[in-house]
Amino acid sequence: MNQNPIPDNKVIITVAQTGAITNKKLNPNVPEQPGEIAESALDCYNEGAAICHIHARDPQGENTSDIDIFNEIHGRIKEACPIIIQDSTGGGPNLTQEERIHCLQAGPEMASLNMGTLMRVSGPYKGIAWSNMPDEIDYYVDEMNKGGIKPEMEIYNHAMLQDVRRLIKDGRIKKPYCINIVLGMRYQGAEPATAETLTSIVRQLPESSIFNCTNVGSAQTRMGTLGMILGGGVRVGLEDNIYYRKGELVSSNAQLVARIVRIARELGKEPATPDEAREYLGLSPQNR
Amino acid sequence: MNQNPIPDNKVIITVAQTGAITNKKLNPNVPEQPGEIAESALDCYNEGAAICHIHARDPQGENTSDIDIFNEIHGRIKEACPIIIQDSTGGGPNLTQEERIHCLQAGPEMASLNMGTLMRVSGPYKGIAWSNMPDEIDYYVDEMNKGGIKPEMEIYNHAMLQDVRRLIKDGRIKKPYCINIVLGMRYQGAEPATAETLTSIVRQLPESSIFNCTNVGSAQTRMGTLGMILGGGVRVGLEDNIYYRKGELVSSNAQLVARIVRIARELGKEPATPDEAREYLGLSPQNR
Amino acid sequence: MNQNPIPDNKVIITVAQTGAITNKKLNPNVPEQPGEIAESALDCYNEGAAICHIHARDPQGENTSDIDIFNEIHGRIKEACPIIIQDSTGGGPNLTQEERIHCLQAGPEMASLNMGTLMRVSGPYKGIAWSNMPDEIDYYVDEMNKGGIKPEMEIYNHAMLQDVRRLIKDGRIKKPYCINIVLGMRYQGAEPATAETLTSIVRQLPESSIFNCTNVGSAQTRMGTLGMILGGGVRVGLEDNIYYRKGELVSSNAQLVARIVRIARELGKEPATPDEAREYLGLSPQNR
Amino acid sequence: MNQNPIPDNKVIITVAQTGAITNKKLNPNVPEQPGEIAESALDCYNEGAAICHIHARDPQGENTSDIDIFNEIHGRIKEACPIIIQDSTGGGPNLTQEERIHCLQAGPEMASLNMGTLMRVSGPYKGIAWSNMPDEIDYYVDEMNKGGIKPEMEIYNHAMLQDVRRLIKDGRIKKPYCINIVLGMRYQGAEPATAETLTSIVRQLPESSIFNCTNVGSAQTRMGTLGMILGGGVRVGLEDNIYYRKGELVSSNAQLVARIVRIARELGKEPATPDEAREYLGLSPQNR
Repeated sequence: MNQNPIPDNKVIITVAQTGAITNKKLNPNVPEQPGEIAESALDCYNEGAAICHIHARDPQGENTSDIDIFNEIHGRIKEACPIIIQDSTGGGPNLTQEERIHCLQAGPEMASLNMGTLMRVSGPYKGIAWSNMPDEIDYYVDEMNKGGIKPEMEIYNHAMLQDVRRLIKDGRIKKPYCINIVLGMRYQGAEPATAETLTSIVRQLPESSIFNCTNVGSAQTRMGTLGMILGGGVRVGLEDNIYYRKGELVSSNAQLVARIVRIARELGKEPATPDEAREYLGLSPQNR
Repeated sequence: MNQNPIPDNKVIITVAQTGAITNKKLNPNVPEQPGEIAESALDCYNEGAAICHIHARDPQGENTSDIDIFNEIHGRIKEACPIIIQDSTGGGPNLTQEERIHCLQAGPEMASLNMGTLMRVSGPYKGIAWSNMPDEIDYYVDEMNKGGIKPEMEIYNHAMLQDVRRLIKDGRIKKPYCINIVLGMRYQGAEPATAETLTSIVRQLPESSIFNCTNVGSAQTRMGTLGMILGGGVRVGLEDNIYYRKGELVSSNAQLVARIVRIARELGKEPATPDEAREYLGLSPQNR
Repeated sequence: MNQNPIPDNKVIITVAQTGAITNKKLNPNVPEQPGEIAESALDCYNEGAAICHIHARDPQGENTSDIDIFNEIHGRIKEACPIIIQDSTGGGPNLTQEERIHCLQAGPEMASLNMGTLMRVSGPYKGIAWSNMPDEIDYYVDEMNKGGIKPEMEIYNHAMLQDVRRLIKDGRIKKPYCINIVLGMRYQGAEPATAETLTSIVRQLPESSIFNCTNVGSAQTRMGTLGMILGGGVRVGLEDNIYYRKGELVSSNAQLVARIVRIARELGKEPATPDEAREYLGLSPQNR
Repeated sequence: MNQNPIPDNKVIITVAQTGAITNKKLNPNVPEQPGEIAESALDCYNEGAAICHIHARDPQGENTSDIDIFNEIHGRIKEACPIIIQDSTGGGPNLTQEERIHCLQAGPEMASLNMGTLMRVSGPYKGIAWSNMPDEIDYYVDEMNKGGIKPEMEIYNHAMLQDVRRLIKDGRIKKPYCINIVLGMRYQGAEPATAETLTSIVRQLPESSIFNCTNVGSAQTRMGTLGMILGGGVRVGLEDNIYYRKGELVSSNAQLVARIVRIARELGKEPATPDEAREYLGLSPQNR
C-alpha cells in the first residue's frame, strides 16, 4: 500500500499516557502530575515505547497550558530516560487556540497537529466544534517549524487528508510526513475503528508518509496490530483506552505497552529505540 | 459492491437547478424564480430527469424559506410535468435551522437530509459551521416522517455514514435507504471527487441502500458516469457545476441532463421515468 | 467486510502438519507416519487447534492415497483427541485425480477442495498443471456430499472465486461456505501473501462464507494474524512453513499453534474447541 | 490510483478487429483477410483508434502464423493509415508456441505478451492449457526486445501481476510498462468484468504503468468507460464482443470505436492520435 522507510522488523511504539478527558476518576492509574508522568514514561520506555505523547494537568487535575508545568514534565522525563517527547496541541475544551500551543515553548522534539474540525456530541461542550481550521493549522505548523519541532498530523477521517495534501503542496511540512490515523473517537466527523476504514485511509496516504495508528477504546489492540502489519507504528495508552480487557481496568500505561510489544515480537518486529525512531522520523537534534 | 434494487438498464437522474450559492451573476442561466424553475424543470424532465432538487429564492435572488414561494414552485412544476419534487433542507448560510425545514410544509415527495457538519473555509461565513448535528438530523427526519416525505441523506465524507448507521439502528428511516454521495465541496470536512473516494464510500454503504452521486465542479460528468457504472443514480445541474466544459458556461440545466442521458444510453441505461423512480425509491403517494 | 457467523471472541485454528512437499529432509520435525501424525495432532489440540489437515505418506515418506494408511491415521487421531479431521484431496504430483479422493472413503468430517488449476514452475514437474478443472471440482464435491463431508474450498487467487460462485449457483455446496484463502504458493497463478491481496479477496467473498487463511512461508504469522483480525480462521503448520523465524527451523507443529494462539489471546480471541468449530461450520455428525 | 503519464484529456483507443475465436459465422462483419483488415483499420483510424491489434487468418479463415500473410496485413495497413500495428502473440489453439511469435518477423511496433496460463473450459480444446509459462514469457519478451517491439502485457487476473513484477525486477521490460487488463474471458483462471475487479487490479499496478482495458462481451462499453475514467486506455472490437447491444450484431469495428469515442468526448477526453500514442508509450521508431 504505502511505501515505508521503516524497516520491516521494527515498529515505533508511542504511549499516550494522560490525555485531556481521561482522569483518575475514570481510572486511578492515569498519571496526571509531572512526577507521575515521568515515572510512568520510564516504565513505558523500559517496555519498548519510543515516543511519549504529553498532556499537562494542573495540581487539581485540570487541563493546563502552563509552560512551567510542561517544562517540569519535560525535565523530569529527560532525567529519567531518552524517550522522544511529543506534546499535544489538541488541548482540552477549556483551552483557547493560543493556549493550546504554549507547550511549544517547552521545546518538545515533536508535537501533535490536529488536521481538522470535529463536533462534540456529548458532555458540557455538546454541539461545540473542536476547531482546527486551515488557518489555525497553518499557524500551528509555522510555529512548530520555527522551533524545529516535527509535527505529527492527527487525522480522524478520510477528509482530513485534504489539509495534509494542502500542507505538502504549500511546502509547509517536510518528508517524511508523520501521520497518525486516529479512529473510534466519539465526535461527529470521526470514523470508526474498523479494518475497512484503516486500510482505506492507509491506501490514500501521500507518498513519503510514515503512519502511526491510534484506536480509541476496545479496538486499540486489534486495530493497532493491523496498523503494525500494514507497516505503521502503534499508539497505546490510557488516553485512548482505560480498560485492559472487558471489565478490567488498565493497571498502568506500561501494561499496554508491554502487550503491544509482545504482539510485535510474535510478528517479528522489535520496538524501535528512541534513537532509531529519531532517525526514521527525521527529527531535528535541536530539542533533544 | 452494493446490491441494487434498480434494474441494470435504468438510471435515476436528478437535476439540481438552482442551489444556495450559484446565482445569475455566476451564470445567468441559473433559474431562480418560480416560473423559471418550473420551465427549466419541464425541459429537464423532457431530457430524462426524474427528480428535481429545489432551492427557493426571494424576488431579489436571496435564499428564502418562504413557504409561499415553495408552494408556488411546487404548483408550477406539478402543472408542467410529473417530475418528483425534492426540496433542499440544506438551506443557505442566512437561514436558521428552523427555517431550513419550512419547505416540508409545502409537501414535497422527497427532501434532502444533510448527515453531518462541515466547516466553511471561505467567504463571509468563513470559520462558521454548516451545522447538522445528530439532534438536528433526528428532528429533521422526524418531521419528514410525519409528512410521508422520503429523506435523501446527503453524505459529504466517509464519516457521515456513522449517522446513517445510527438512523438505521434507531429505526428512524425506512428501506430502501436513499443516500446521495456528494463529493468535491469546498468545505473543510468534504472529500474530493475522485474515483478512489467514490468507490470506497460505495463499498461501505449499508445494505438496502440506493445511492445517488453528486460531484461538484468539473468532475461532475466523469464521477457521475462512474457512479452510474457502479449502479447509482446521477445528479447534475447548475447548483453543482456552472461550466459545461472548461471556459464554457452551461446554457441550461437541460443541457447537463441531456449530456448525462446521452452517456447513460451509450452505456445501455435508459433514464428512469418519475413513476419508475417512485417505485424504486418507495415514495409515498401522499404528496404526489 | 464479510459478515461472520463466528463469535468475535473466538478463532478457529487449523494445523496442516505434513503436506505433500515438505518432508523430514527439509525439517526433521515434519510428522509423516500415522503414529507421528496422531501424536503431533494431540499436541496441537492441547495448544488450541480445532482442525487437523491431513496428508498421508507411505513408509518411505512418499505421498500416498492408500486407504489403509488414511484409516490408520484417522483411527489414531480419534483415539488421541477430539480434533476435527480434514483430509487433503490436493494430493501430490505423483497421484492421479482418482487417487486424490481415495481418502474420502476413510470418512473425514471435512476435506479440502481445490478450486482451480495452478502451474508448477520448478522441480521435476515444472510446466505441468496441478489440475483442478470445473468437471473435477464437481466430481469431488459430489463425492464429498455423498459422504456427508464438508468441503473447505481452497482458493489461491481472486479468479478461483468464479468456481466458488458457480458451485453456490448450482446448489452443490451448503451454507456456511468454508473458504480457505491460500496465499504465497510458488506456482504460476498463485497470489502473494500481502495485506492488499488478502483484504481484497476477503472483500469479494460470497455472503454466508466462513474464511480460513493460509499463508505460505515467512508471512504465515503476520498474514494469519491479519486474517484473524478480519474475522477469519488461521491455518498454521509445517506443511506451509518450516521456519519458526529466519534461520530457525520449527521444532514442532505445536510450536506454531502455540504462537498463533498467544497472539489470538492478546487480541481477545480464544481458540474455538473442536466442538465449537463443528457448530460454527455446520459439520455433519455422520463422520465424527 | 495509478500515476499516469497520459494527459487527462486524452485516451488511447485500441481496436481488436479479428481475434482467434470470433469469425464470420459468429458475425459476418469480422474482417479476416488482409484487405478486409486494412480497410476496417482505416475506418477505425478515422473514428479515433490509435492502435490496431492484429490476428491473421489463412484464406480459409483459420488462425495462421504465416509470415507472408502478416507482411501483407502490415503493408496494406501502412498504406492505408498511420495507425500503430500491434500483433497478437496469443495465437490460437492450433498454433505452437514457436508459431505464435512468427509475426514478430513482420516488424510490428507493438506485440501482445500474455502473462500467464489459462485453462480452456469448453470446446474441442477443453481441459487444455493456453500455456504462457515464465520461460515462454521470457523467450517472447527477449525476441520482442531484439526487434525493438514494445510488449503490451496482457493480464487476465490479479495473479499475472506476479510475472509482470518479475519482468520488471529482471530488467526485461522498459518504462512505461504497458499493461492490458483483460476481463471476462471464458477460461478457468480468468476474472469477471466487474468494477470491483478492475479497480482492484488498477490499484495494484506497478509504478510507471500505462494501462489498457479490455472487457469481453456485454461489459465492454461500461468497463471500458470505467477504465477510461481511471486513466487507462480502452480496447474495443469484434475480437472481444460481437454484439452492439443485446440481440443486435456489431455492424463494423468502426461502429464500436465510434461509440467509445463519443463517450470519451462527453467525458472531456479526445482520442490520442497514433503519433501521440507513440510518444506516450515510448515506441521505438524502428518499426514504424
